[in-house]
Amino acid sequence: MTGKFIVIEGLEGAGKTTAINTVARILKQHHIADLQFTREPGGTPIAEALRNIIKNGLDNEPLTDKAELLMLYAARIQLVDNVIKPALKMGKWVIGDRHDLSTQAYQGGGRQIDKVFIETLQAQVLGKFKPDLTLYLDVAPELGLMRARSRGQLDRIEQQSLPFFERIRQRYLQLAERDNTIVTIDANQSIEEVTAQIETILNSWLIN
Amino acid sequence: MTGKFIVIEGLEGAGKTTAINTVARILKQHHIADLQFTREPGGTPIAEALRNIIKNGLDNEPLTDKAELLMLYAARIQLVDNVIKPALKMGKWVIGDRHDLSTQAYQGGGRQIDKVFIETLQAQVLGKFKPDLTLYLDVAPELGLMRARSRGQLDRIEQQSLPFFERIRQRYLQLAERDNTIVTIDANQSIEEVTAQIETILNSWLIN
Repeated sequence: MTGKFIVIEGLEGAGKTTAINTVARILKQHHIADLQFTREPGGTPIAEALRNIIKNGLDNEPLTDKAELLMLYAARIQLVDNVIKPALKMGKWVIGDRHDLSTQAYQGGGRQIDKVFIETLQAQVLGKFKPDLTLYLDVAPELGLMRARSRGQLDRIEQQSLPFFERIRQRYLQLAERDNTIVTIDANQSIEEVTAQIETILNSWLIN
Repeated sequence: MTGKFIVIEGLEGAGKTTAINTVARILKQHHIADLQFTREPGGTPIAEALRNIIKNGLDNEPLTDKAELLMLYAARIQLVDNVIKPALKMGKWVIGDRHDLSTQAYQGGGRQIDKVFIETLQAQVLGKFKPDLTLYLDVAPELGLMRARSRGQLDRIEQQSLPFFERIRQRYLQLAERDNTIVTIDANQSIEEVTAQIETILNSWLIN
């Protein structure tokens, strides 16, 4: 039996790490213990090298929005082909810290790159491959950024302006609304409340 | 006055380096001395980092054809936006060791990636930007590879099979035929004969 691919999505400071741990814990309660964790961009040597350039830049060279987008998809193909698909085939369940929805939201919504171009890349790179379930942690950008800042220094993308993150949130909400494999979770609440929501949703999804 | 962008194209062992030196020498005879040399993929810190992964791989991870293609275009945007266009604007002439035609030929012809997808990337990345003149050095793959081998170890791409390079040559010839800014030069001849051809073509192009 092939495994399932569950993805956690959301803005900086939405609580993705806690959510990933919660998902893993619940899966184990359901005796699904053979888990593969991924993060995007990243998760293979080549994808991590690309992540490093995307997150930190290189020698102060300006990184164009389109080069960023193409590198994200290059990293994604490497991860999907070399890690995610082989893991699923072996019956592992994969828990992803971000996946394609992030690119739709950040590069499409945030950076406002042509939606048709992103959809072409998505179709060429992923074909019909998509997560079985995506938990989108919806947080107000002000709150998320406050939480992210309290963790330490912000990277190249986290340093963007508030309207940038507001556009991302709107795109996330829009995409979640029209895809019933994406569940929106109110992540403005306390960790305990968010965790309880995830437990309810995942438990009910697992028995269906 | 903006400068011009002249590109040298061709298979491994076609004689690109000699051709580049010839072009630079002729331009200087025409009192065009402010030259910028580029190579693709590469030519900026980020593009060189991508080149290194494309040429040498990383930790033995299989590099998918599509990730290679996307990284080539990411490197190209960085070079065009951060080096070539600024140089041309300042009145410099740019001499390129490969440019977009290589991707059409190698990834389109050689790797047989969907032509429409490559054309979409080309349009999105380059828009209407293209070289003023391309000199395509046409060489039989057997001869070119023999010359390349005599120079030392072959990289990841140079290690492909003969039919791979035959498909690339056919695509080069096909593309050269339908674009009058691309001039095909018979590079199966001796260095002296190829150099003489380049001198004739470039001298006549410069005074027109």
